[in-house]
Amino acid sequence: MAVYTEVSDEDLSRFVAEYDIGRVISCKGIAEGVENSNFLLQTDRETFILTIYERRVRVDDLPFFLDLMEYLARAGVACPTPLHGRDGCALRTLCGRPAAVVTFLAGMWPKRVTPAHCLALGEALARLHLAGQNYPGVRHNALSVGNWRPLFEVEAKRANSVLPGLADEIRRELDHLERWWPVALPSGVIHADLFPDNVFFHEEQISGVIDFYFACNDFFAYDIAVCLNAWCFESDGAFNVTKGQWLLSAYHRVRPLTEVEISMLPLLARGAAMRFLLTRLYDWLNTPAGAFVKPKNPLEYVRKMHFHRNATHPKAYGVVAT
Amino acid sequence: MAVYTEVSDEDLSRFVAEYDIGRVISCKGIAEGVENSNFLLQTDRETFILTIYERRVRVDDLPFFLDLMEYLARAGVACPTPLHGRDGCALRTLCGRPAAVVTFLAGMWPKRVTPAHCLALGEALARLHLAGQNYPGVRHNALSVGNWRPLFEVEAKRANSVLPGLADEIRRELDHLERWWPVALPSGVIHADLFPDNVFFHEEQISGVIDFYFACNDFFAYDIAVCLNAWCFESDGAFNVTKGQWLLSAYHRVRPLTEVEISMLPLLARGAAMRFLLTRLYDWLNTPAGAFVKPKNPLEYVRKMHFHRNATHPKAYGVVAT
Repeated sequence: MAVYTEVSDEDLSRFVAEYDIGRVISCKGIAEGVENSNFLLQTDRETFILTIYERRVRVDDLPFFLDLMEYLARAGVACPTPLHGRDGCALRTLCGRPAAVVTFLAGMWPKRVTPAHCLALGEALARLHLAGQNYPGVRHNALSVGNWRPLFEVEAKRANSVLPGLADEIRRELDHLERWWPVALPSGVIHADLFPDNVFFHEEQISGVIDFYFACNDFFAYDIAVCLNAWCFESDGAFNVTKGQWLLSAYHRVRPLTEVEISMLPLLARGAAMRFLLTRLYDWLNTPAGAFVKPKNPLEYVRKMHFHRNATHPKAYGVVAT
Repeated sequence: MAVYTEVSDEDLSRFVAEYDIGRVISCKGIAEGVENSNFLLQTDRETFILTIYERRVRVDDLPFFLDLMEYLARAGVACPTPLHGRDGCALRTLCGRPAAVVTFLAGMWPKRVTPAHCLALGEALARLHLAGQNYPGVRHNALSVGNWRPLFEVEAKRANSVLPGLADEIRRELDHLERWWPVALPSGVIHADLFPDNVFFHEEQISGVIDFYFACNDFFAYDIAVCLNAWCFESDGAFNVTKGQWLLSAYHRVRPLTEVEISMLPLLARGAAMRFLLTRLYDWLNTPAGAFVKPKNPLEYVRKMHFHRNATHPKAYGVVAT
């Protein structure tokens, strides 16, 4: 939960007047999201989301993200659409920080994921990949295989304080991932952070996908691997094959996976587990005690990594059916 | 900013179905308020506020608060109105905690208070006092003069760690307040916590008053004294006489203050400063390092207390004009 920047009425009124969206009626900080400050902004016409970009988001990347959302929305993806100010600009400034207003999406993210959610997710993810195929922007994935070892080395000395032997385990795993990571798979714009709290549902239908602030160009199947990690494990740590199968099959029906993509799933899932293990490890060891946002336990992803290491065949994630 | 309880979709749908308010479209935790978990709840009919009562609120007090809001709303005060479930009950249970849904009020609390805000506040406070005069509920003020010394003694040993000499200063102040605190002044239901973040404005008109969870029976003028502390000091610590005068005069025009009430203002303001100094001191010394809510610095109220101690005449707060 996070609101890092407090906005005065005067600053807000002035900012909103730069758009043609009516007069402010209410503006409440939302206790969701950890990277940026988000506000539910109600004007006398409509409800919007106001985001003030903080800390980790690189300002240079913001046009890629905002243009992408607009591009995907035009292509029929239910995602927030940035609004343009009267001068045509979507990326603006509020309280000295970059800021944008985007459309509000109804729906709620699932606190308890069902196979039906995974089915809807698989379909939506494939549509997202297809919709973004001709997006002209390019953004390198700053959290892919080549970035993991440098990220790890920052905390290597303290990793064993989280779990004895963790440093060695991560090193061995990185050796393997760096050696076998694929160089060519079907690629395009991926979301790269499609966790349940970034997908809104109405009953079990998807009403919207949010938070494109890790989006980048990478393997489509890596995006699937992130979802297998984020959606298909039960809270006791067990992988739910039904969820995996429904997710993969639904994806496959919209954008058929190649044989190579399917065969690479265990390795990609190991890599995705490593990526979230490393950023969580970093946050776990570097979040100051008084911080608003409680860091997530990295050990969840150690356990997931173990599962993927033992998944010698893609069928461990469920048979991909058409 | 605070959301202590996370609500699953299933629990929420079940809970909302106990009301006749339509189907849930969105429910977002609000990063405001420190005592309870608040959510902006949108159904296909309307927007509401869902509150889950946490920690400090005594469950036995909740009917007093909820009935009061309903009573005041009926009497024309712009305040949240609790909704009744299909069984007639307003106080319900969600995630094992007491919970209620209240109407949503538009408007924003002023981050920068102007004299015009204080004028509107004075008028609204007087109307609130008049509107609640025949409210049948009774709730003793649990944070009045008799409670201050016991509250202080809990932290007496650590008070000097916040400011050298603070413990002795508070003791001397308590001696004075206990000796001279009035026993009879015009009384009724007061809000008792009417800080700027509990008052919503549209431009400089009040659109609503929220957070009645400290409301109780006490002197009306004590409620004014709380507002003088919370609204009329500048961020540099100076008392703004214009703000005080506009607040008091606007109040007086709606509910004329007696001579005794006016003469008691310096003492009541000292007491109000003591009340917030003590609870802030307690929170300052007892908030765990990892807490979501950052405690407010108690020293602000030490400085306000000094001002009131030197205010030997009510005119220090501005001349009350009709």
